Amino acid sequence: MSYAVEPWQLRWQGLSVDHLHQTESTFALSNGHIGLRGSLDEGEPRGLPGTYLNGFYEEHQLPYGEGGYGYPEAGQTVVNVTDGKIIRLLVEDEPLDMRYGNAVEHQRTLDFRSGTLRRRTVWESPTGRRVIVRSERLVSFTQRAVAAIRYEVEPMDDLQLVVQSDLLANEPTKSRSNDPRVAAALDSPLVNDFTMAEKTRAVLCHHTKVSGLRMAAAMDHEIDVDGVDTRTEIRAEDDLARFTAAVDVPAGGCLKLTKYLAYGWSGQRSTPALRAQVEAALAGACQTGWEGLLQEQRAFLDDFWEVADIEIEGDDQLQQAIRFALFHVLQAGARGESRAIPGKGLTGPGYDGHAFWDTEMFVLPVLTYTVPDAARDALRWRHATLDKARERAKVLGLKGAAFPWRSINGAECSAYWPAGTAAFHVSGDVSYAIQQYLNATGDEDFDRCEATEILVETARLWMSLGHHDPHDGFRIDGVTGPDEYSAIVDNNVYTNLIAQQNLWAAADAAERNQYDVTEEEIAGWRSAADAMAVPYDEMLRVHPQADNFTKHAEWDFENTPQDKYPLLLHFPYFDLYRHQVIKQADLVLAMHVRGDAFTDEEKARNFAYYEARTVRDSSLSAGTQAVLAAEVGHLGLAYDYLVEAAFTDLHDLHENVTNGLHMASLAGAWTALVAGFGGMRDHGGELTFAPRLPDELTRFSFRMSFQGTRISVDVSEAGATYRIVDGTELTTRHHGEPITITADTPVTMPIPKAPDLERPKSPFGREPRRH
Amino acid sequence: MSYAVEPWQLRWQGLSVDHLHQTESTFALSNGHIGLRGSLDEGEPRGLPGTYLNGFYEEHQLPYGEGGYGYPEAGQTVVNVTDGKIIRLLVEDEPLDMRYGNAVEHQRTLDFRSGTLRRRTVWESPTGRRVIVRSERLVSFTQRAVAAIRYEVEPMDDLQLVVQSDLLANEPTKSRSNDPRVAAALDSPLVNDFTMAEKTRAVLCHHTKVSGLRMAAAMDHEIDVDGVDTRTEIRAEDDLARFTAAVDVPAGGCLKLTKYLAYGWSGQRSTPALRAQVEAALAGACQTGWEGLLQEQRAFLDDFWEVADIEIEGDDQLQQAIRFALFHVLQAGARGESRAIPGKGLTGPGYDGHAFWDTEMFVLPVLTYTVPDAARDALRWRHATLDKARERAKVLGLKGAAFPWRSINGAECSAYWPAGTAAFHVSGDVSYAIQQYLNATGDEDFDRCEATEILVETARLWMSLGHHDPHDGFRIDGVTGPDEYSAIVDNNVYTNLIAQQNLWAAADAAERNQYDVTEEEIAGWRSAADAMAVPYDEMLRVHPQADNFTKHAEWDFENTPQDKYPLLLHFPYFDLYRHQVIKQADLVLAMHVRGDAFTDEEKARNFAYYEARTVRDSSLSAGTQAVLAAEVGHLGLAYDYLVEAAFTDLHDLHENVTNGLHMASLAGAWTALVAGFGGMRDHGGELTFAPRLPDELTRFSFRMSFQGTRISVDVSEAGATYRIVDGTELTTRHHGEPITITADTPVTMPIPKAPDLERPKSPFGREPRRH
Repeated sequence: MSYAVEPWQLRWQGLSVDHLHQTESTFALSNGHIGLRGSLDEGEPRGLPGTYLNGFYEEHQLPYGEGGYGYPEAGQTVVNVTDGKIIRLLVEDEPLDMRYGNAVEHQRTLDFRSGTLRRRTVWESPTGRRVIVRSERLVSFTQRAVAAIRYEVEPMDDLQLVVQSDLLANEPTKSRSNDPRVAAALDSPLVNDFTMAEKTRAVLCHHTKVSGLRMAAAMDHEIDVDGVDTRTEIRAEDDLARFTAAVDVPAGGCLKLTKYLAYGWSGQRSTPALRAQVEAALAGACQTGWEGLLQEQRAFLDDFWEVADIEIEGDDQLQQAIRFALFHVLQAGARGESRAIPGKGLTGPGYDGHAFWDTEMFVLPVLTYTVPDAARDALRWRHATLDKARERAKVLGLKGAAFPWRSINGAECSAYWPAGTAAFHVSGDVSYAIQQYLNATGDEDFDRCEATEILVETARLWMSLGHHDPHDGFRIDGVTGPDEYSAIVDNNVYTNLIAQQNLWAAADAAERNQYDVTEEEIAGWRSAADAMAVPYDEMLRVHPQADNFTKHAEWDFENTPQDKYPLLLHFPYFDLYRHQVIKQADLVLAMHVRGDAFTDEEKARNFAYYEARTVRDSSLSAGTQAVLAAEVGHLGLAYDYLVEAAFTDLHDLHENVTNGLHMASLAGAWTALVAGFGGMRDHGGELTFAPRLPDELTRFSFRMSFQGTRISVDVSEAGATYRIVDGTELTTRHHGEPITITADTPVTMPIPKAPDLERPKSPFGREPRRH
Repeated sequence: MSYAVEPWQLRWQGLSVDHLHQTESTFALSNGHIGLRGSLDEGEPRGLPGTYLNGFYEEHQLPYGEGGYGYPEAGQTVVNVTDGKIIRLLVEDEPLDMRYGNAVEHQRTLDFRSGTLRRRTVWESPTGRRVIVRSERLVSFTQRAVAAIRYEVEPMDDLQLVVQSDLLANEPTKSRSNDPRVAAALDSPLVNDFTMAEKTRAVLCHHTKVSGLRMAAAMDHEIDVDGVDTRTEIRAEDDLARFTAAVDVPAGGCLKLTKYLAYGWSGQRSTPALRAQVEAALAGACQTGWEGLLQEQRAFLDDFWEVADIEIEGDDQLQQAIRFALFHVLQAGARGESRAIPGKGLTGPGYDGHAFWDTEMFVLPVLTYTVPDAARDALRWRHATLDKARERAKVLGLKGAAFPWRSINGAECSAYWPAGTAAFHVSGDVSYAIQQYLNATGDEDFDRCEATEILVETARLWMSLGHHDPHDGFRIDGVTGPDEYSAIVDNNVYTNLIAQQNLWAAADAAERNQYDVTEEEIAGWRSAADAMAVPYDEMLRVHPQADNFTKHAEWDFENTPQDKYPLLLHFPYFDLYRHQVIKQADLVLAMHVRGDAFTDEEKARNFAYYEARTVRDSSLSAGTQAVLAAEVGHLGLAYDYLVEAAFTDLHDLHENVTNGLHMASLAGAWTALVAGFGGMRDHGGELTFAPRLPDELTRFSFRMSFQGTRISVDVSEAGATYRIVDGTELTTRHHGEPITITADTPVTMPIPKAPDLERPKSPFGREPRRH
């Protein structure tokens, strides 16, 4: 059993209880504020329940066998909040449960254009009664606090039906922690503050025990049974509100229940204020009505696909996977509004709901060029946490601001110090995303306010972290770069190059915006950036990922069985760190985002060297490998990596989709196509392209927005055609050649032949997975 | 208040409740098997109670906020076992408690020649009744399972006295862990298995809850009250056995109670067997009697001082401190017998009772040259854990054997992976101590059996850990060296040089003993050792402690306030690791133990370089700094470091003596004198001397045993005199010149003038502490 291959939707035919934990993730709905896993309406069977509010977390102590200075004491974990998805059905005296009776027909469909999850089930009860159940669910992109469900039942005989629609807090879940204290903190995390139930409407307000965050969930209902008499009741307890409708429906009749949900949370606002907020949102939703919500949703998505759609000809599975990827990236970021975009979006509890640097380096490029307001909002979250980042830098003995390795509220939550104290590139990544956003939008307000402050504070971090050394220039020692199979290294090339650009950008921004910084300080930034150490191995003629990297022992890939991957579960850190084995693109990522710092020959030699040593145990790797493979001319390999990135979640390549989708990998599919085969680059703020068509495709096109102009790039054997979709004019480059397109005159350019190169070797057994 | 300065004892005059936690450690008695903290007989007031059996521990889960492959799951913690030290006194109706009434006179004396702790107290009760209490306590060096106490009370009026002598299990103590699970495991760790009380004798048998180790404690009593009628009773509960004697003593009369204690434990033997064992030991002790035990103890110590004494003229405090140090090192190792020598000996619960590499590199050199059988026994402990070390190497993906960073039973217990998985020098240190022991004793049995097996298995470890590299030879990357302000470094010079010697020694031993190893394997060891990478900074002309070390940023010592030391409590690991700041001798230690690998000029330049960057936050540092300071000619600095090492515990320089004495620092005082001012070296198995007299002393002498011959070296301005103390002949070198001494003819040699050197700079504010 698997997904049907269709261009605009993801459909799963039949029920497979064993796959529910995966399909709940792939079928998850979100607007970046509310997230609902794709559970069955009736709640069970299930993989794991999940209703999330972005930024709403519980706090718990982080345990250490041996503590250390600067180790964070408090962990944060996303909370499964009050579940409003549940609608149970009693058919005569039998509860609808897909594990019993007979599922004559069952399919679920995630529709990328309507932005809804549909379900159609024909169920025969154990005693032979048949009903058709149809439901459709949305989390509104336009009404941020609102979700809604249309639930319809058609009995095939005259039947008594009872529908129960719940708000259920503190759903029992299996503990995800070995630590009894952590498990205790997350078992029933919500404490009731307020309960209300009246007619068709109910409100439950709760707060978390330790973090003290308050939330409210509300539901309202419309029921329509073709004029048949309906008996309804509503009641509420501390952790449960339930609307019940009992009705005798004749064969061929139809029970239609519309459920409106509203959610809100705050660390500041009172329970009455939150209650008011959700009741207001509910009133708005009811006023718009189900059909209205559907229309708004489609309009929002029509606009998104106009600016973001990617068309693929020659590989239908890839076409579907790429739209699936874009849809989920949009869901993760659309309405986050100054909250983080977690590594899993709001699709599951993986990584404890934390956000990482993936957001800036993988997810935001997609949003920056398609939904720039969402990128800005995510960067505003970083700005909102600047005081915490300043405090963290201070604790670490540094100046400026150090953004956390993993967090929900901006405070460092990593219990692994080589990441939680030394992965300073995170701060450079935030700065990189800011520069990219500014270049792509020309947003002057953001430049003056948030951007410059962050650039200045991160520049200060680098100055206090690095030092001018007589041996090599400006060194940055003892840091952890992107590759998690190395740590605490000197002169990580990626970190140093991202810091270099950070320092230059801070100097430019401070001057441009007359920020309150002395000339001496700015001169110091430029001088450090100009002197930045970038190690090079003269013997092997490649850049070591960090000092000494190319002197380390090679990993014995031939004698590493495939069941020993991911390596980090089978080998100790020190052993991974001392070998030339790479979890995820690090120097290769540097060659993408700081491609201006390498010659073509260096890129080709480095790529071959690192390709042979990169095992891609991280879902972050494939997209970046694709970009560089395409750039240096390995189109077949680039295609394989594009496919791997696009199918990471649909094919559950890392066997953990149950915990949520990998936003960075989904975004990486976009990057593999747009920056890989499209050759899109934005070094120094200039947008350029260098498209190439892989053998496997007959045509592809992509769209994006730059400085308010929407364009499309259409690539086939005939050449690359650049068109204005919305706007007047754009100047760019095609394989280095300047071109200008206007609203009326698309430009078609021929595609230079790719060099004829031998495909570089991947580590034994780690060749990209083809579909 | 402080210790009286006396050459052969440590005496504390007066009661200072606030200092009890320290004096309980300095006054601790031990024979390496049983350890009794120097608590007051009546148990309270106290710092912390402490009765330890070497190797007896409880196990508990090690918690991790983020786990990792190869992290040990179980921790081990030394257990405070059944306390037999307690003798309470009721004077009429008032319990003797030094916090009440009036301590007219009170002193405690640790006697280095009798090997006993004496106490004399004249106490006036709150209602004015006076008694003189004298007690003397020993832990027998000759009867390993036995301790004994003589307790005397002389009333100054006619008084009724009640004496209660206890065996008390599960004494309440303050939890030492933040983790509630660990605290729970160690709160009341003992479960009763057997109880017996009859006449004057009682036995309690217990086992630990998780580790399942069994122990027995027994006591017997003799009471003598000048013929006065005594009423005694004995009773026992699960956790308490109590012998009570009530007697009316006339003024000037004397109650004399002798208490014999016997202890035993086992992971294998049954409770009845352990009971039999302690009852037998008790019978032996009673047969020997108190006076007999005293005589045996003195004879044992007379022999020790004959081979080990150090005389100092010109500094009485140092004289006392050095004998104090020697006495405690002896106590820690004398009768360990195939158990570890913990970092704190058996003087307190610090470091959880774990043994570290300190034993091999600091403590064993003292024992090897004074009580070689004790050194052999400690090395047998390592041999007994070889299977665990093999298993650990396998878990770490390596061959051979990897000895643990910290352990009680031989299994790794470190929850900090850069130490617990990467501090491979521990295995080289064990091999170093083995070679030193073999050279100093010529013990062929040990060579053939234990020694060669360990040398071979550790050689295999190095071969699987390092690799031949085209850049630099045989590299050992990603290891943690001795300095704990660095970790996970490449080519740590100390580690590489200790590995080099390990490989050579393994090759020699395997050939010498026709061990079952192929010629190819042996050739591989020699070729790796010969090609061993030893980094050198050509620009600065010093050896970097590890690759890149001298390129790291300098620490800003001038702006580091003294209350920020030890730095590890105030700065994060990454920050210490990326700076040129050193916790403890690392390259300097390499220059001591592998002095043959450096030229004189390199030693001088390196020493000055590292002296300026070593803050000595570890008690392991001063002794080694002294050795190299003396060698390169900084005698004043060497003297200061000798003093610092000798007074680390007496002056509580690290403010943690409450948790026990620092065995390595105490041993370091010996090393500072013998290897420092004595210039003793044993490179390649040849014993040589190069004595120098510091300005602060008029004369010093030391003794040692080499290949069964006992010698003394006496150094004064007149020269150095080498004498045979016991034996026939010894050939050695004095400042490079070969000399032979025989039983009849001491040799006196002139001392060459030390070079006139500028005293090197210590880090700001971290100059050695003078007394």
